[in-house]
Amino acid sequence: MKITIAQLNYHVGNFNANTEKSIRIIRDAAAEGSDLVVFPELSVTGYPPSDLLERRDFIEECENAVDRIKEECREIAAIIGVPTINRTSSGKRLFNSACFIENGEVKQVINKTLLPTYDVFDEYRYFEPSNDFALVSYRGKKLAVTICEDLWDEQGFDNSFAPRRLYTHSPMEELARMNPDIIINISASPFSARRTEMKKRVFTGKAQRYNLPLFMANQTGANTELIFDGGSMVISPDGRIYDHLGFFTENVRSYDTDKIIMGHTPEPAYGEGYIEMIYKALLTGVRDYFGKSGLTTAITGLSGGIDSAVVTALAAEALGTKSVRALLLPSMWSSEHSLTDAIELAGNLGIRYDVVHIADSYNAVTESLKPLFDDLPEDVTEENIQARVRAVMLMALSNKFGNILLNTSNKSESAVGYGTLYGDMAGGLSVIGDLYKTDVYALARYINRNGIIIPERTIQKPPSAELRPGQLDTDSLPQYDILDSIIYQYIELQTPAENIEGNGISPSIVNKVIRMINASEHKRFQSPPVLRISSKSFGPGRRIPLVAKQ
Amino acid sequence: MKITIAQLNYHVGNFNANTEKSIRIIRDAAAEGSDLVVFPELSVTGYPPSDLLERRDFIEECENAVDRIKEECREIAAIIGVPTINRTSSGKRLFNSACFIENGEVKQVINKTLLPTYDVFDEYRYFEPSNDFALVSYRGKKLAVTICEDLWDEQGFDNSFAPRRLYTHSPMEELARMNPDIIINISASPFSARRTEMKKRVFTGKAQRYNLPLFMANQTGANTELIFDGGSMVISPDGRIYDHLGFFTENVRSYDTDKIIMGHTPEPAYGEGYIEMIYKALLTGVRDYFGKSGLTTAITGLSGGIDSAVVTALAAEALGTKSVRALLLPSMWSSEHSLTDAIELAGNLGIRYDVVHIADSYNAVTESLKPLFDDLPEDVTEENIQARVRAVMLMALSNKFGNILLNTSNKSESAVGYGTLYGDMAGGLSVIGDLYKTDVYALARYINRNGIIIPERTIQKPPSAELRPGQLDTDSLPQYDILDSIIYQYIELQTPAENIEGNGISPSIVNKVIRMINASEHKRFQSPPVLRISSKSFGPGRRIPLVAKQ
Repeated sequence: MKITIAQLNYHVGNFNANTEKSIRIIRDAAAEGSDLVVFPELSVTGYPPSDLLERRDFIEECENAVDRIKEECREIAAIIGVPTINRTSSGKRLFNSACFIENGEVKQVINKTLLPTYDVFDEYRYFEPSNDFALVSYRGKKLAVTICEDLWDEQGFDNSFAPRRLYTHSPMEELARMNPDIIINISASPFSARRTEMKKRVFTGKAQRYNLPLFMANQTGANTELIFDGGSMVISPDGRIYDHLGFFTENVRSYDTDKIIMGHTPEPAYGEGYIEMIYKALLTGVRDYFGKSGLTTAITGLSGGIDSAVVTALAAEALGTKSVRALLLPSMWSSEHSLTDAIELAGNLGIRYDVVHIADSYNAVTESLKPLFDDLPEDVTEENIQARVRAVMLMALSNKFGNILLNTSNKSESAVGYGTLYGDMAGGLSVIGDLYKTDVYALARYINRNGIIIPERTIQKPPSAELRPGQLDTDSLPQYDILDSIIYQYIELQTPAENIEGNGISPSIVNKVIRMINASEHKRFQSPPVLRISSKSFGPGRRIPLVAKQ
Repeated sequence: MKITIAQLNYHVGNFNANTEKSIRIIRDAAAEGSDLVVFPELSVTGYPPSDLLERRDFIEECENAVDRIKEECREIAAIIGVPTINRTSSGKRLFNSACFIENGEVKQVINKTLLPTYDVFDEYRYFEPSNDFALVSYRGKKLAVTICEDLWDEQGFDNSFAPRRLYTHSPMEELARMNPDIIINISASPFSARRTEMKKRVFTGKAQRYNLPLFMANQTGANTELIFDGGSMVISPDGRIYDHLGFFTENVRSYDTDKIIMGHTPEPAYGEGYIEMIYKALLTGVRDYFGKSGLTTAITGLSGGIDSAVVTALAAEALGTKSVRALLLPSMWSSEHSLTDAIELAGNLGIRYDVVHIADSYNAVTESLKPLFDDLPEDVTEENIQARVRAVMLMALSNKFGNILLNTSNKSESAVGYGTLYGDMAGGLSVIGDLYKTDVYALARYINRNGIIIPERTIQKPPSAELRPGQLDTDSLPQYDILDSIIYQYIELQTPAENIEGNGISPSIVNKVIRMINASEHKRFQSPPVLRISSKSFGPGRRIPLVAKQ
C-alpha cells in the first residue's frame, strides 16, 4: 500500500484556502498512484479554532469542506481532521474527529478519546471524549487511526505531586487487541524547543511496542501564538525512524508500506540544533502572523540593545527588508552608541530607519504635569513616561502607515515585570517573549553565523534600559544567567521556591525573583500575544488569578 | 437538625484569612448549637484558583487549612470545599471536593462529577471527574452532598446546534436512589445579570423533584473578573424558597430542618431589579479588586461623558470619596461642557480633580513626527495620539501617587473596537466593560435615584469621543440600541449573522458590526480584566484566535 503524508500549514477558519490546499494534494497523490493521503488533526479548520467551534455557521463550513473533499476521493482514500457534531442527546457539542473517506463517502469517523486540557490546550471545552474503538479496513489492511494524544497516553506531568499519568485510558491498547497492520496518527502538536526528542521517543516507542509501521502527520505553520513544527514521521516496526518530513515547512511525501516494514539504514537525524529550531520557529511565527492576518509591514523601535536588534533581524528575514522599518527614539539619557549601534544594524539589514528625539515630547508631558507633581523627586514615573512617549510615536507611525508594531520584550523581563505597560510592552505581537535573555544572546550569535548583522557591541555591552543616567539592568535584577535559571524552574518546571537551586542561586534571590514574578501578573495580563517556543509561555497557557495572594 | 449556611467572601490563595474566617463561623455556630456548617465550593482556596492548582505548595497549604479546620469540628460538623489530591495512578492531579468533617476528622470526601469547562470555567484543566456516589450519614440523617453543577445536570447551551444537554450523567439521580433526607449543594456560582431567575428554578426544581429540603451555600465577593452574588438558598421540599441569604454580602444563618420541611409562607422574593443587581455587582467587583490586591486608591480620566462619569461614581461609592481622584484632560477639540460637566460631577461626588490640558504634549508629539508624516492628511492617527497622550498623563499620576487607573470602556465600544489601544483602553481594571452603552445609561439613572450625581447634560448629550471637531459616535457606529442588540445576539447568544434581527436591524448593519467585532479581536486581547456581569464577557471566557479568517 502506498501512503502519502501531507504536512501542511493551515489557516484557522480559512475554509476555502484549507480545502483547496487539501484537494490539490489529493489530486497529486492520486495521479502518482497513492492509495491513501493522511492529513493532520483538524486540517479542515486549522488549529486551534478555539471558540469559533461554538458557532453554528463555523461547523456548517466544516461540513461543506468535507463534502468538497469527498468528491475528490474516488481512486484514492483520505484521512482528514475535522470537528463533527455529537448526535447523541447529551455531552459536548462536538467530537474531534478523523474522517476516513473512500469512494466519495465518509466511510468511518474516528473520534478522539484523550483531549488535552492543560497549558494552551482547551479541547474538553468543545469536544466530547470518545470511548468507541474500531479499526479502518482498507484495501486488505487494517489501520489503527489515532488522533494526536490518543497515542500519547503515557503523558505525564512536568512537576507531579499526584498521579504518574494524565490519562486513564489507552486508545492504542484497545486498537491493538484488534490486530491492526498499520498505525496512523494525525496531529496538531505545537513546537516546544525542549521536547523534540521526547516526541520522537513517544512515537518510535509506540511503533516498537506494537511492532507496526507508524505514519504520523503533523501540522506546520503558526496561528498567532502556536507554532507547529511539522516533523511528521514514518517509523518502521523496529522503532527506527524511516523518514521524516522536515521542520517548519510544508512537505508531502509518499511511502510504500512494505519498504517501511523492512526498515531503513542509517536512521535519519530527527530535529536540528536548539537555537536553529527556535530561529525557524520564530520566523514561521512572524511570517504567519502577518500573512494570515493580511498584514504585510512591520515597525520596531530600535534601541541599540540586543532585544530590539534580534526582533528586527528576525522580522527582516521573515517579511523581507522592504517590509520592515525601524524608528530610533533617543532620549537625553541615551548613550551615543545606542544610536550608532542601531544605525549600524539597520544598515546591515538594509531596512529603512528614522530618528525621532523624544526629549521635546517628554518635556512637554512632564511640564504639563509639574503642577501636580509639586517638587516630588523623580522616580520610576519619569522613566515610564519616556517608555510611553516612545510607544505613542511608534503607534502613530503604525496608525499612519499600517506597519504593525513588533514587541521586543523577552521572557526574563516579562517574568519580573521589568518593562513599562503601554510603553515598551506595547506591540501587536511579542516575537521573543518566550525567550530567556540568555537565549536571546545565543540567537543573536546564530543570526550572525554567516557574518555580522547584529553589531558586536550590541552583543557585548551590558544590558541597560537607559531610562536614567548610567542605568544597568543589574541595578534591579540578578545576573541574567541566574535570573533565567530561577524563572525556568519556577515557571516551566513549577518547582516550589525552596527547591529551586543552582550556581549563584540563594534563597533570598529566589524569593526576590518570585515576588517580582507574582507582582507583575497584571502587566502580563495586558501583553501582546507571545510566540510560544517552550512548554510554558506567558499568555493563555498560564492562568494566574490577578488578585490572588501569593 | 440545625444547619448553618455560611455565605462568605473568600480571597484566592489567602489561606490564612480564608481559614480564620471559616473557623470563626464554626465556633459561632457551635456556640449556638448548630449541628452542621455548610461552606461554599472551594472555600479553602477561593474561586477561581486557576493555575495555582498546579503548584505543589499551594496544595500543601490546602491540606494545612483542612488540618486547622478539623480541630474546630468537635461538637459540630462542617462541609468545606477544597481541592484534594487524586491518589490513583492516573488522571488529573486533583479532585474538586467537599470534605465532611466530624469529630475532628475528615470522615468523608465527596468529589465533583460535573466539571464546568466552558466560558470562564476551566475545571477539567485541573480536576478528575468523580464517578463514585455516596450519602453522608450524620446524626440520623442521610445527606446528599453535591458540588455546584452536580445539581445542574440539565445544563444546556445558549445556542445549541447539537446535544440538548451538556452533561451525560446526573449525580443527584444516583444519590436519590440511596434515599437521602436532605440535599446540600456547595457552589461557587458567579453572577450573571440575566440568570438569577434561572438559577432559582434549577434549585427549586431539584428540591421539588426529589421532595427534599435543599441547602445551597454560594460564595459572595469578587476575585478579579468573577463576581459572586451569594444568593444562597434554603428550599422546602415543595420547591418553594424558605429563605435566602441576600446578594453581594456575607451572611451566615442557621435553620432547623424540621421547620424547612413544613415550608414558609409567603415565599421571599429572590433577586432584585436588573440594574440594581448590576450596580451591586460592580461595587463588589471594584471593592474586592482593590481590597484583595492591597490597593486603596483609584484615578479616572473624566471626559464629561457618561462612561467615565458612571465609573467614577461607582469607584467613589466602592472605595470612598477620599480614595478616588479624577484627571480632566481637555484638548483643542473638547467642548466647553465637557469640562464643566466633569467638574460638576467631581463636585457632586466630592472627589479631588485636576485639569491638565493636553495640547502642548500633543503638539510636541505631532511636531516631532512631522518630518515623517510629510504632508499626509490628518486621520485616525492624530485622534489616537490624543487618546494615548491622555493615557501617558493618567499613568504618570498612577505611577507617582499609586492610584490605579480605572478603565472606562463599555461593552458596546469594546465590541466594535471603538477605542484606542494604550489610550482610552488602558487601565488596571475595566469596570463597565461588560455593560452595553444602553445599560450604562440605565445605571447612570440608577446612580441618580436619590438626587443628581451625574449631571443631566452628561446623560442627555449625544455621545462623542471629541477627538476631532464636531465628532459624534454615530458618525462611525449605528445608534446604540441597534448596536447593542446586534452585539448581544452575536456575542452572548451566538446567533449566526443571518438570524440576527430586531427593530432597525438590516443585514448590511449586521454585517458591518460583525466585521468591526472580528477586526478588533487584537485590541481586546490586550484589554484590562473586565468585571463580568453577563454570561459572556470579553476576556478569558471568550477565546477567539487572532489570525483566524472570519
